[in-house]
Amino acid sequence: MRYAVLGTGIVGRTIAAKLASLGHQVTIGTRDPKATLARTEPDGYGNQPFGEWLALHDQIRLEAIADAAAWGETVVNTTAGGGSLQALEAAGAANLADKVLIDIANPLDFSQGMPPSLNPVNTDSLGEQIQRAFPEARVVKTLNTMNCQIMVDPSRVAGEHTVFVSGDDTGAKQAVTDLLVSFGWPESSVLDLGDITTARGTEMLLPIWLRLWGSLGHADFNFHIAGA
Amino acid sequence: MRYAVLGTGIVGRTIAAKLASLGHQVTIGTRDPKATLARTEPDGYGNQPFGEWLALHDQIRLEAIADAAAWGETVVNTTAGGGSLQALEAAGAANLADKVLIDIANPLDFSQGMPPSLNPVNTDSLGEQIQRAFPEARVVKTLNTMNCQIMVDPSRVAGEHTVFVSGDDTGAKQAVTDLLVSFGWPESSVLDLGDITTARGTEMLLPIWLRLWGSLGHADFNFHIAGA
Repeated sequence: MRYAVLGTGIVGRTIAAKLASLGHQVTIGTRDPKATLARTEPDGYGNQPFGEWLALHDQIRLEAIADAAAWGETVVNTTAGGGSLQALEAAGAANLADKVLIDIANPLDFSQGMPPSLNPVNTDSLGEQIQRAFPEARVVKTLNTMNCQIMVDPSRVAGEHTVFVSGDDTGAKQAVTDLLVSFGWPESSVLDLGDITTARGTEMLLPIWLRLWGSLGHADFNFHIAGA
Repeated sequence: MRYAVLGTGIVGRTIAAKLASLGHQVTIGTRDPKATLARTEPDGYGNQPFGEWLALHDQIRLEAIADAAAWGETVVNTTAGGGSLQALEAAGAANLADKVLIDIANPLDFSQGMPPSLNPVNTDSLGEQIQRAFPEARVVKTLNTMNCQIMVDPSRVAGEHTVFVSGDDTGAKQAVTDLLVSFGWPESSVLDLGDITTARGTEMLLPIWLRLWGSLGHADFNFHIAGA
């Protein structure tokens, strides 16, 4: 399968490397590949410059976002939530049509101070905004409720824990479930919440996730729905 | 210990009955006791009329909300979230001062359609509103993330699961933790998130709770933080 991973941050890198390790073809899409590769400083989170990372993953390519999206059979949105709609516009509606679009982003809003709040929230969600903006894409919201290391290696957290899926397209949710199983998730840990409006619920886990991260002092935890 | 439980709905009844079964003295507070006792129809959720329920719990008294709050050494807010501030005003700030005020309510807002949304949300919470309105009360937000049967009988859900506490007063949180342990919660299941602003995070679990209730078809589930 050809995967286009949109976003060059730590989530995109982690997903891209996992997909490549499973034998998939992977292209990362970014607004300006030359500018991305020209960076020589760590990003704001202390991750190595993208070019250094890419040199260690020579089976992964970097392309302009529209080229990556056009090439991919499945598209993964790992861009920062505040810029996701703009990034997907740059990817191009025609390049997303009829494709499974896996949305991992959270609409964190840093403008109201720390910890970040959400925008949209409560009566809307980023997942719904994306589905409305790209009605021909088959949007599945998933994996947005945990640290990216756990996304691709659920064994980092002991015991049972849950990954949620939300979306309007049953076939797309099944394809994503199969992908999650290939990442190491037991099928019994994949919890289908329902249509894309349920993305409100998973995005609204971020505030308590952030406070748990603070109170526990590490990110190797995850939500589990006991009794499900 | 003398507990004043504010609210005559199913959450208040369940908490009151549990407290009485543990040997505590319990008074339920309501705006108009005569009107509450005069009702002969089930409430909107199909629960038996309050007077019938009270007749089966003759160790529990019903009083006007201010009288109950004045009498109680600890106060429990189980009123509907949209009316909690008004109910606590009726209870009276002087009757709440220096007391542990356990807030179980969620600010569900039915005005935006179903499923209900939250108000306040995101950059504020009902727990914080209550603490700001009654600065001398020792507010602890807890138990608001699960069905009321589980609050008082955590063994209904198999395996480990979590009850969160949020509050500014360490001593009050310890007293509430002790109470939770007396309800049957293992101390290791009580997760202190931090100050009262962390109530935003637990109140924002309600949207996914409501969708899980719908997709699972039952309410005997609870959040667990795996890896905590």
